[in-house]
Amino acid sequence: MLSETKKDPLYIQLYNHFRQEIEQCRLQQGEKLPSIRGLSNSLSISKITVEKAYQQLLSEGYIQSFNRSRYSVNKFEGNIIPIKTKHTLIKSDSSSKREEEVIYDFSSGEMDMDGFDFALWKRYISKVFSNKGRLMRYGNSQGEEELRTEIAKYIHKSRGVHVHKDQIIVGAGIQTLLHTLCSMLKLEYNSIAFEEPGFKNGRRIFTDHSFEIMPTKMSKDGIDMEELSKNEARLVYVSPSHQFPTGYIMPIGKRHRLLQWAQDVKGIIIEDDYDSEFRYFGRPIPALKGLDASGNVVYLGSFSKIIPPSIRISYMVLPDTLMEVYQKSASLYNQAASTAEQLALAKFMADGHLERQIRRLRKLYADKRLIFFDAIKNILGKNVEVNVSEAGLHTILAVKTGLTAKELVERALVKGCRIAPVRDYYINKSTEKLPQIILYFSKIPSNEIARAVKLLKEAWF
Amino acid sequence: MLSETKKDPLYIQLYNHFRQEIEQCRLQQGEKLPSIRGLSNSLSISKITVEKAYQQLLSEGYIQSFNRSRYSVNKFEGNIIPIKTKHTLIKSDSSSKREEEVIYDFSSGEMDMDGFDFALWKRYISKVFSNKGRLMRYGNSQGEEELRTEIAKYIHKSRGVHVHKDQIIVGAGIQTLLHTLCSMLKLEYNSIAFEEPGFKNGRRIFTDHSFEIMPTKMSKDGIDMEELSKNEARLVYVSPSHQFPTGYIMPIGKRHRLLQWAQDVKGIIIEDDYDSEFRYFGRPIPALKGLDASGNVVYLGSFSKIIPPSIRISYMVLPDTLMEVYQKSASLYNQAASTAEQLALAKFMADGHLERQIRRLRKLYADKRLIFFDAIKNILGKNVEVNVSEAGLHTILAVKTGLTAKELVERALVKGCRIAPVRDYYINKSTEKLPQIILYFSKIPSNEIARAVKLLKEAWF
Repeated sequence: MLSETKKDPLYIQLYNHFRQEIEQCRLQQGEKLPSIRGLSNSLSISKITVEKAYQQLLSEGYIQSFNRSRYSVNKFEGNIIPIKTKHTLIKSDSSSKREEEVIYDFSSGEMDMDGFDFALWKRYISKVFSNKGRLMRYGNSQGEEELRTEIAKYIHKSRGVHVHKDQIIVGAGIQTLLHTLCSMLKLEYNSIAFEEPGFKNGRRIFTDHSFEIMPTKMSKDGIDMEELSKNEARLVYVSPSHQFPTGYIMPIGKRHRLLQWAQDVKGIIIEDDYDSEFRYFGRPIPALKGLDASGNVVYLGSFSKIIPPSIRISYMVLPDTLMEVYQKSASLYNQAASTAEQLALAKFMADGHLERQIRRLRKLYADKRLIFFDAIKNILGKNVEVNVSEAGLHTILAVKTGLTAKELVERALVKGCRIAPVRDYYINKSTEKLPQIILYFSKIPSNEIARAVKLLKEAWF
Repeated sequence: MLSETKKDPLYIQLYNHFRQEIEQCRLQQGEKLPSIRGLSNSLSISKITVEKAYQQLLSEGYIQSFNRSRYSVNKFEGNIIPIKTKHTLIKSDSSSKREEEVIYDFSSGEMDMDGFDFALWKRYISKVFSNKGRLMRYGNSQGEEELRTEIAKYIHKSRGVHVHKDQIIVGAGIQTLLHTLCSMLKLEYNSIAFEEPGFKNGRRIFTDHSFEIMPTKMSKDGIDMEELSKNEARLVYVSPSHQFPTGYIMPIGKRHRLLQWAQDVKGIIIEDDYDSEFRYFGRPIPALKGLDASGNVVYLGSFSKIIPPSIRISYMVLPDTLMEVYQKSASLYNQAASTAEQLALAKFMADGHLERQIRRLRKLYADKRLIFFDAIKNILGKNVEVNVSEAGLHTILAVKTGLTAKELVERALVKGCRIAPVRDYYINKSTEKLPQIILYFSKIPSNEIARAVKLLKEAWF
């Protein structure tokens, strides 16, 4: 039975043998195992080998000490079930199967392949490894201090938001931050107004935390104040600088009305400033948070449009009242973002590379945007209505065919183009006059945009 | 007013001027702004500069188009509040202030400073950057496929858990995984039994998701089945291989009873296998999940004890029924772990480095553990009762003084030693006969353990 040539050491082979004997009830409960000396002699193996095997069986509870030198099979309630774990193979889902067939992905705001200098980033990551002490530990639960310092400078300069580094919490993507935020908001709120249509992956976290979601329609100047006032929510999730997916900008008067509303209902505005960097005329619209004199605004920022989203770093600015709640339990939350990436990003920002990176992308996307709208005009022409937004990385297309949104998506996919319908972002999916499609241009190579739009034409018309 | 030498471009200076005039009501609502041509002439600046300033004011909603070439101040409801955001500086909390005074940290299972080869890791991270395409994207929401493949092999070989890669979900720390898990479990369960004392950062996430926590006392053979059966929970969170903080191991008979319980109540066992690699005699106790023939066990694994915890990667194995629930909404969750670190770890594992790393740490900690228990015996002697565990990175010390746990912690801190009392891990903090302290030895350098334990003696006796 035992063999020196088998892969497992002898004591493991012996342990496995007895374990099977017990599990399959060939060794009865209460029955004594052979003595260590006896077994050692009869198998011509060392006593230590037998002892180690018995010790393992003892630790796992298969046997118990009978007297000083003998062991017996433990008594169990009921039988030990012989184990043959089997698992149904999960069918790989059809969408990932189709992945390989996708040539052009219009459904995602991921970055242009030439949009980031990985050689430079690699240098910053490499530098971090010289500081072993920082990387051996769990990180600061609120985020590394150097990074929070740089974020504070950045949002002051570029977004008009003036806060102290200790008011900033770093996370690994907006969703990890929303989990923390939800757990705090839940103490006082149980429903939240959401832009309709709006950011569904954000909404999802509030659903997960059992908030009642109140879809509130979008007007051209942002969330509809009348509807907001009518429903009972005292929380609202908005993206005033550039709403997703409509692209609407909330003007200053509306911003003040919204702030006034928050003061009146003792509520909280959650401002998601996800792609504010990309405005192609004039300078970016300042953040609503910059007007927040009374501490009613939670500000959410993300790097995922300006550095590759595989580097998972985002941040949140809390008003003082919520910060106090957070600090009481901060030690119970572990930071989810990689320490190495946080430290590398902090240095990258301190050296001015993030600003350079934004300028570079703004130029790249400004050019690409022109090519994109030209292609739509020249190739799709009067078959579509297009919303020519002056900001962001996407537009909305209303397609004049008899096809439904679902059919448009499927036909585009057959041609190798992935697109997302606007209706996916609605909670109440009412029928649209014309099916609307979100088209991101950020990821499509500039010199292939015309070809990609032609594929859409072939698919639809 | 305008100056070429100021830092801001002229159009921004002009924009700021009008914005202030409007906010401070020196320009009345409805009032017309100077014509572009007129202002350009009177200030001797280009028309384009004026146009850009007006365009910005228009985008932000301060002004509206009056006729083709003139603009007027927008009408707002109520006044525009002049903004002077001020923020109370959050007081930096006292515990972080004390950080610098800590010489020896017995409160954390962080890694020995020599426990990881960062030069090697850096090579693996660097290699990843050659695959730009993978890093430009949002990662696979379930975790990178290569990593899930390696995790499946690893837990099969080392933990006796046989699953397919598609049953594994990667996360950035156990807490991000628990958030996802909670949102699924909530559909069917509203209370959960927790080991008492137990892993408080895990418990916290269930509290955040409004689960009722049912503390269930620990027996020497794991969670008390009688108490578990009496309370109404059908969910239980356990760490059978090496419970934290008690260090107890759940024997095979008890494991089967627990599995039987889960089948009977149609419940779920959440198995947290956080430091199973470190057993210094014999081989690691196989995971409970390996016995789960009926799909009642969720398995949680972490790398944070075997590679530095600043690399935030953990994983979860779901039974088929939960996996189906997960897959329906997987696209709504973004992966939180860094793609670069996931890919580097996958290759690191494939090349056998993780196994080497575990062997290396096991040797390092086995030696350190002996030095540690020797020091406690020789230096603290009969003043303490010590639980000499054969696994893990910590022990529990009962300290025989008149001091409370709180006093023990404070006095140790004065001497530069951070320790954590066991009572922190209880929900119901009943009075202990003797105050109990958790001491981790993993982080204290071997040649300073004696010195560190002497400091504890000086602090307490």
